[in-house]
Amino acid sequence: MNVAKSFKELSASQKINAQNKIVMPGLINMHCHAADSLFRGLVEELSLEAWLQKVWVAEKAILTPETTYTGSVLGFAENLLAGVTSIMDMFWYPTEAVKAANDLGMRISTGGIFFDYPGIGNRSHEDFLQEAEKFFEDYNSNEAVFPAVMPHGSYTVSPEHLKEAKKIAAKYNGLYHIHAAETLTEQSDINERYGESVIRHLHSHGLLDQQAILAHCVHLDDTEIQLIADNESVVVHNPMSNLKLGSGIAPIDKMFEAGVTLTLGTDGAISGNDLDMWLTMRLAASLPKGNTLDPKVMNAKTVLHMATLNGAKALGKEDKLGSLEVGKIADFIFIDMDKIHAVPVFDPITHLVYSACKSDISDVFVGGKQVVKGGVICTLDINNVVEEVRALSPKIAASLV
Amino acid sequence: MNVAKSFKELSASQKINAQNKIVMPGLINMHCHAADSLFRGLVEELSLEAWLQKVWVAEKAILTPETTYTGSVLGFAENLLAGVTSIMDMFWYPTEAVKAANDLGMRISTGGIFFDYPGIGNRSHEDFLQEAEKFFEDYNSNEAVFPAVMPHGSYTVSPEHLKEAKKIAAKYNGLYHIHAAETLTEQSDINERYGESVIRHLHSHGLLDQQAILAHCVHLDDTEIQLIADNESVVVHNPMSNLKLGSGIAPIDKMFEAGVTLTLGTDGAISGNDLDMWLTMRLAASLPKGNTLDPKVMNAKTVLHMATLNGAKALGKEDKLGSLEVGKIADFIFIDMDKIHAVPVFDPITHLVYSACKSDISDVFVGGKQVVKGGVICTLDINNVVEEVRALSPKIAASLV
Repeated sequence: MNVAKSFKELSASQKINAQNKIVMPGLINMHCHAADSLFRGLVEELSLEAWLQKVWVAEKAILTPETTYTGSVLGFAENLLAGVTSIMDMFWYPTEAVKAANDLGMRISTGGIFFDYPGIGNRSHEDFLQEAEKFFEDYNSNEAVFPAVMPHGSYTVSPEHLKEAKKIAAKYNGLYHIHAAETLTEQSDINERYGESVIRHLHSHGLLDQQAILAHCVHLDDTEIQLIADNESVVVHNPMSNLKLGSGIAPIDKMFEAGVTLTLGTDGAISGNDLDMWLTMRLAASLPKGNTLDPKVMNAKTVLHMATLNGAKALGKEDKLGSLEVGKIADFIFIDMDKIHAVPVFDPITHLVYSACKSDISDVFVGGKQVVKGGVICTLDINNVVEEVRALSPKIAASLV
Repeated sequence: MNVAKSFKELSASQKINAQNKIVMPGLINMHCHAADSLFRGLVEELSLEAWLQKVWVAEKAILTPETTYTGSVLGFAENLLAGVTSIMDMFWYPTEAVKAANDLGMRISTGGIFFDYPGIGNRSHEDFLQEAEKFFEDYNSNEAVFPAVMPHGSYTVSPEHLKEAKKIAAKYNGLYHIHAAETLTEQSDINERYGESVIRHLHSHGLLDQQAILAHCVHLDDTEIQLIADNESVVVHNPMSNLKLGSGIAPIDKMFEAGVTLTLGTDGAISGNDLDMWLTMRLAASLPKGNTLDPKVMNAKTVLHMATLNGAKALGKEDKLGSLEVGKIADFIFIDMDKIHAVPVFDPITHLVYSACKSDISDVFVGGKQVVKGGVICTLDINNVVEEVRALSPKIAASLV
């Protein structure tokens, strides 16, 4: 195809100068709890289990549908400014997250949560079931929402409830997002309760398939890796959160070798302290090298695919998202190449993974519509939200005293 | 002391608005090869040893005193924009590095290199000796230069030459900077040649003392850690470079427990791809947590000290640098707290280590003189240097073809 000629034949209502910028597909953040940005830095330097006990106390004291909306805008705005155009978010009031993403102009995958302990809003399992089903009814035909069910984990949701959640997802052909094998403590807890490891447990109950999206997978044996690969389930790697909580270093090099579909996530800012997919890419490429003493594992191109095309595949939208191709949706971003850490550049792929950073993103487009221009969000006034969060901060700080 | 009253009694010729900014001491980057920024991204995804063979070919083809100056400005400017006010740099033409740092308005520790193989400039050991001595003569009374000798490593410099370098340093009470125990290959090479490990080898030859500054120390046994601690030598941790080259993860938590003086470095941009002390701090605090499964090791305050006060101590300037105190030199920086990843903040220390990033640095002062204002270098026109590097890029790319 003569590209130059075909470009000449096109007309455009808007022309954008992208001189000295890399144009690439928007990033896909496959694991986040955006509204937890309200609690950024509140609970520090604890293991997942001790940390969760405090997180839940703070969440209980602060979260309403209104504050969840505010926190979601805060978290999604940080993602959007860093070039994330689609995000998978697990949180207590998913319709508030949808509203926040919609107001910012991002795509979101979320849906009804499941949690067997007293969670936020004191909802029963019956309430969660109804809300999960209603979510699919409300959003199943929305172009910017990819509905899912979101059982928290196999250590917080019984096998029966995990299966009921799956039933709803299956009815609507929806995604199934769950925390899995994040810590050694979780693995021994599940082993003790059910006599098998986390991934085997999920598999025993028929929960591993193409629509299962497993966040973390830090502690796996070879059989578990093979189970995930054989069932074509998706793993979301969250290296910053896993390091910070002392959860460990996920064996993504082994999973990659086994053919697992690997994607990337930031987790929430309450564990990793920011929501930076560029840092996530860099760690995904660098950590396995340091951990295995092999600088050739997880090369830059593989990791760039994790943050783009593999996310699209995980969302079931490989035909629409994740790369810049004729016929796909125009979700794309500009990377500023005038920063001093972009001098010189010999290979744009390794530049993007090893040198670029979140503050290099100048412009973001979702579905062809500009949502970030020159590093500023166009769709809403983020300063109002920042002021709301600052006003709420003393109450948040007091929630753990 | 009534601080408000004492402030009122002071007068100032310049008043600076630091509203909504953190003011803190400038960072001290204790291991860099700034001019290697010319080769950023040129040699990717190889182990240290295979990588060095290519690096040396590219350096040989490109480096002159003039290009070394240009590359040094490029590398130091990236450091300065990220809030680094003092830097230890090891490179082939140290007087060019001094000139570059001086033109930008930074403090530098550098000095004569030692290297037993055909290096850049085809200098003999006698040449290196003369240059090292001359460097002390020229800079020993310069306020912004902390002279050192810089033998490359125990695998590239013979014990006799290592000791001759030490003799010069000792004569002038100067620092002794060397790569040490970076890879397993280096450890087995030294073991094979000399029958003992790298740190024992340095100790056997009387090279471990308070002025020995050891870059890397990734592979150490407990005895080596104790040797470093007992001799009060300094370790520079370069986590990004160590990950990227597949060198490994340094046991800084064990070194900290043993009482070793730990500092931080970026290494050169040819291994780590950028020169970011904020990423370095974040990794120094997070990697050991993930590696040991203990979220309490290497807390934020400890790591902030590594990047400031411990650097000052390593340079022998604890009385002048590394903290903001009456009587110390005014090397300080402003951190912008209006970025979205700075909302909310409950603790400034954990914010600085886990959330802040290089693009948050708005202003930098060295010795009370403003050198970066609103994210722009005031001391020289960096755009000229950027254009020079871009013009040189095709020749750099061709150097390895």
